[in-house]
Amino acid sequence: MTKSIGIFDSGLGGLTVLKELSTRFPNESFCYLGDIARLPYGNKSPETIRRYGMQILKFLKEQNVKALIIACNSASTVFLGENEFEGIPLLNVIEPGSAAALKVSQDKKIAVLGTSATVRSHAYLETLKRLDASAEVYEQACPLLVPLVEEGWVHDPVTQLVAERYLHEIKKEEIKTVILGCTHYPVLKPDLRKVLGDDVHLVESGEVLAQQLENLYQQKVLERDTGTRQIRICITDLTDHFERLARVLMHPEPIGPLEKVVL
Amino acid sequence: MTKSIGIFDSGLGGLTVLKELSTRFPNESFCYLGDIARLPYGNKSPETIRRYGMQILKFLKEQNVKALIIACNSASTVFLGENEFEGIPLLNVIEPGSAAALKVSQDKKIAVLGTSATVRSHAYLETLKRLDASAEVYEQACPLLVPLVEEGWVHDPVTQLVAERYLHEIKKEEIKTVILGCTHYPVLKPDLRKVLGDDVHLVESGEVLAQQLENLYQQKVLERDTGTRQIRICITDLTDHFERLARVLMHPEPIGPLEKVVL
Repeated sequence: MTKSIGIFDSGLGGLTVLKELSTRFPNESFCYLGDIARLPYGNKSPETIRRYGMQILKFLKEQNVKALIIACNSASTVFLGENEFEGIPLLNVIEPGSAAALKVSQDKKIAVLGTSATVRSHAYLETLKRLDASAEVYEQACPLLVPLVEEGWVHDPVTQLVAERYLHEIKKEEIKTVILGCTHYPVLKPDLRKVLGDDVHLVESGEVLAQQLENLYQQKVLERDTGTRQIRICITDLTDHFERLARVLMHPEPIGPLEKVVL
Repeated sequence: MTKSIGIFDSGLGGLTVLKELSTRFPNESFCYLGDIARLPYGNKSPETIRRYGMQILKFLKEQNVKALIIACNSASTVFLGENEFEGIPLLNVIEPGSAAALKVSQDKKIAVLGTSATVRSHAYLETLKRLDASAEVYEQACPLLVPLVEEGWVHDPVTQLVAERYLHEIKKEEIKTVILGCTHYPVLKPDLRKVLGDDVHLVESGEVLAQQLENLYQQKVLERDTGTRQIRICITDLTDHFERLARVLMHPEPIGPLEKVVL
C-alpha cells in the first residue's frame, strides 16, 4: 500500500511547501493538515502549540504516512531537535532553513523574518549559532504580514509601507541573506525584494524541505513511491474562502475537494 | 453567595466591554473568558464558532454566573435570537447595538464595521432591517484592524492608510452612524474619526451592553449585587504579552493575575 508524506501547518500557508514538494516528487502521495480552526499559531504559547501539534502528528500518523513534515515555523520551534515521532522520520523547517541560509551567505550576516512565536523562541538564532558560531543573526517579528497575505493585499502600497517598517534595520545593516520564517511569506517575495533589493537571497521552507527529503531518499531512510499518487488536503475548518485560497496557492496543480476533520 | 456576570470574547478585545461594565456597575462581580488559544473567531465558520461558544458558555455557567454576555461580535452572530443558556439570561452585542444605532441615526443610513465572519453572517444587516425596514445598511469587513490593534499601531500612518481604504465607500456615502462591530475597534476611535469626521456617531458594544444590563435590573430579571466585588479574567492561553495587554486595556481598573484555563 502506498504510504504518503504528511505535512502539517497552522493554516493554508504550508500549501506553498506542498506545491514545491509535489512538483519535485511527482510520484509521491501527500496528506496535508491545515489547522485552520485554531490558526494563527504565531501568537500562541509554546505549551499550547505543542499540545495542538501532538494532536496533529497523531492524526497524520493514522493516515498511513512514511514521513512527517512540520511546515509551520511556529510549530517547528517547539519540536526542534526531535527527528522522529513514534518511529516515523520527522522534519522541521528550522534546521534545514538555517543550514541553507549559511550555505548561500558570503558574510554570514543573516536575518530571520517570522511570527511573534517564532522570533520569541530564538529557534533560528540558536540553530544558526550552533551551526556557525561566527554567524551574525538579526531577528524580526512581522505579525502583520500573515493577515496582509490573507487579505490578498500583495503588490500593495499598504504592504509596502508595512514591509519598509519591519525591514528598516535589515536594510540599514545591508543584510543580504533573509530566511522567510513563515509559510505565508513566499507570496510576498516581490514586495520584500522591492525593499531589500534584487540581490537579496530569500531562503524558503519549500526548497530546503525538498533538499532534506531528497537526502532521506538517498540515505535510504525513505523509499521512493512509484504508484499512482494521491494528494489529500485536510483542514479543521471550512469556508468557501479557504477552498478558493487553496486552489490559488496550489495552481496549476489540480486538487480534489478539501476534507474537513475535527481534532 | 455572590453571583457574577459572565463575559465571553475570542480574545482580550472584550476587556473594553468588561471595563465599561465594571465602571458602570461597581458592585457587580465579573468572570471574563478570552479564548486566546483559538482566536481570531472572525475568519472561522459558523459551525466551529458555535462549537467553541458552547464550550465557553458551559465553562462560565460552572463559575456561578447570573447572566452571560457574548461580547464577541463574530460569536454573537451564531447565538442571535437566543435569550438564555440553560436558564441563564444570555445577551449578545448585535441586537442592542442595532437598536442603539437606529436611535442615534437621523437619516437611518448605518454602516457596520466587522470581521469577515460578522459581515458574512449579515447579522447586523438583518437585525437592523427587522427593527426598521427603511434602514439603509452598508457592511464593511475590516480583517486587518484586529492585527493592527494587537501590534499596537494606533495613531499610525499604516493604520490610517488601512482605515482610509476600508472606509472609502462609507465616507463617500456620507454615512454618519457607524457600528463598531468588533470589540477591538474602540481602541481605533481616533483613527476612524480622522477619516470619517468628528460628527460621526461610533456605536460601541460596551455602552449598549451597559444599557441592556440596566434594563434587566430594572425589569427585576437580574438582582443587583451589594457584596465585595471580584473580577476574574480567564484566558485559554497565556504569554507575557497578554498580561501586559490586559493591564493596558483595563487601566485604571486594577486586575489580579490572569487565570489560564484549558477548554
